[in-house]
Amino acid sequence: MSSDPITAALLVIGDEILSGRTKDKNIGYIAEYLTAIGIDLREVRVVPDVEAEIIAALDAVRARYTYVFTTGGIGPTHDDITADCVAKAFGVSIDVDPRARAMLLERIPEADLNEARLRMARIPAGADLIANPVSKAPGFRIGNVIVMAGVPSIMQAMLDNVAPTLETGRKMLSVSIEAGLKEGDLGGPLGEIARAHPEVSIGSYPGYVDGRFQTTLVVRSREEGALAEAEQAVRRMIETIKAGKA
Amino acid sequence: MSSDPITAALLVIGDEILSGRTKDKNIGYIAEYLTAIGIDLREVRVVPDVEAEIIAALDAVRARYTYVFTTGGIGPTHDDITADCVAKAFGVSIDVDPRARAMLLERIPEADLNEARLRMARIPAGADLIANPVSKAPGFRIGNVIVMAGVPSIMQAMLDNVAPTLETGRKMLSVSIEAGLKEGDLGGPLGEIARAHPEVSIGSYPGYVDGRFQTTLVVRSREEGALAEAEQAVRRMIETIKAGKA
Repeated sequence: MSSDPITAALLVIGDEILSGRTKDKNIGYIAEYLTAIGIDLREVRVVPDVEAEIIAALDAVRARYTYVFTTGGIGPTHDDITADCVAKAFGVSIDVDPRARAMLLERIPEADLNEARLRMARIPAGADLIANPVSKAPGFRIGNVIVMAGVPSIMQAMLDNVAPTLETGRKMLSVSIEAGLKEGDLGGPLGEIARAHPEVSIGSYPGYVDGRFQTTLVVRSREEGALAEAEQAVRRMIETIKAGKA
Repeated sequence: MSSDPITAALLVIGDEILSGRTKDKNIGYIAEYLTAIGIDLREVRVVPDVEAEIIAALDAVRARYTYVFTTGGIGPTHDDITADCVAKAFGVSIDVDPRARAMLLERIPEADLNEARLRMARIPAGADLIANPVSKAPGFRIGNVIVMAGVPSIMQAMLDNVAPTLETGRKMLSVSIEAGLKEGDLGGPLGEIARAHPEVSIGSYPGYVDGRFQTTLVVRSREEGALAEAEQAVRRMIETIKAGKA
């Protein structure tokens, strides 16, 4: 386990997300998953199926974060260009990988292994494969970039397979407190608590449920002691405000 | 209506999306909405509640696209820093705006208009307000940047209010065809159709439903004639493949 935070970005690749045709289900899943294993997701970008855009986004984030995860664009059709873009970004060649081809043959009869299906075995030189128990066509990892499918069930299986190989940091601890108050009534004192506890991050999340505004306060820290102190301060604040209003 | 494409980026601002605590519901809604009114969403970024990150992302996308939409970070608590970041990005001052204060007073008694609630009336100098019929605290527009709430019901109302003021382009037309084939069986000929019809965009979207792989083909174009021609080519291709397999 690293003592420095382990960070990540996610690139969601696909015109269908940007047109609204497909509603992304991977961002929230990956965010929650990485948080749980001690990797901080710091940025997400959704980019179209355009080579220059994918490469520019890849280069921008892979230099900044420990890991970059991508979803989408590794299927057998002409609009699946992620693997080629990753190869270009890394300046390596890409061709049908015998290991990936063997994986495809576990599910696909050799007679059906046409050029389109073989696209799914095109892997940048030097990459490690990520097994896909659902449909066999693998994801891959090259450098700090982890390339996964866009179909949620397949992406999730790939994430399970690659996660044990990743470096992780101290987990972010968090406590969630339902304030039972409006944000406007607690914003002032909460800000003071946030300033007095710079080693924790305090978020205030309003919701609008059954015509009423609710506020959930989330206190986060990697330090158990600091978290407990800030949590107590927040709980005392809530009691004080409620007593004042009663 | 513009003859050039009108483009947009979306910035989703908030630690809670990156931690997975909150599952974003705005990206898909805004994507579908903008497509329907003739604005191309070209990029989405999710960024944390960190001033430098928000400003860097704002500056990167506002220079590139016709419009930038933001969601999140305009509430009354210390972690709501979007309005201040937008003011900094534009190099303008920010203070309590009398028009926004008046809007808040439609819902909030003056005695309750504390410093926290007045944060919601802090508007960058020169911005136009966007009415919020749900909870009154307005969004705003400055230059090409449109700043909206993160709570979906409020964001949606703001989008309805700002949309009629936006320039829109020719709508992207699309037709969706359920192929009844596996992607690997149609990838080759579909790629040829895509190359032969460069004025349309053809996407292939696999799904995994009830243990079977499905493929939806989506043909998109702003030109009705080009769309119809490519659609016919795709339908003929599907018939040919099915005839060959029968």
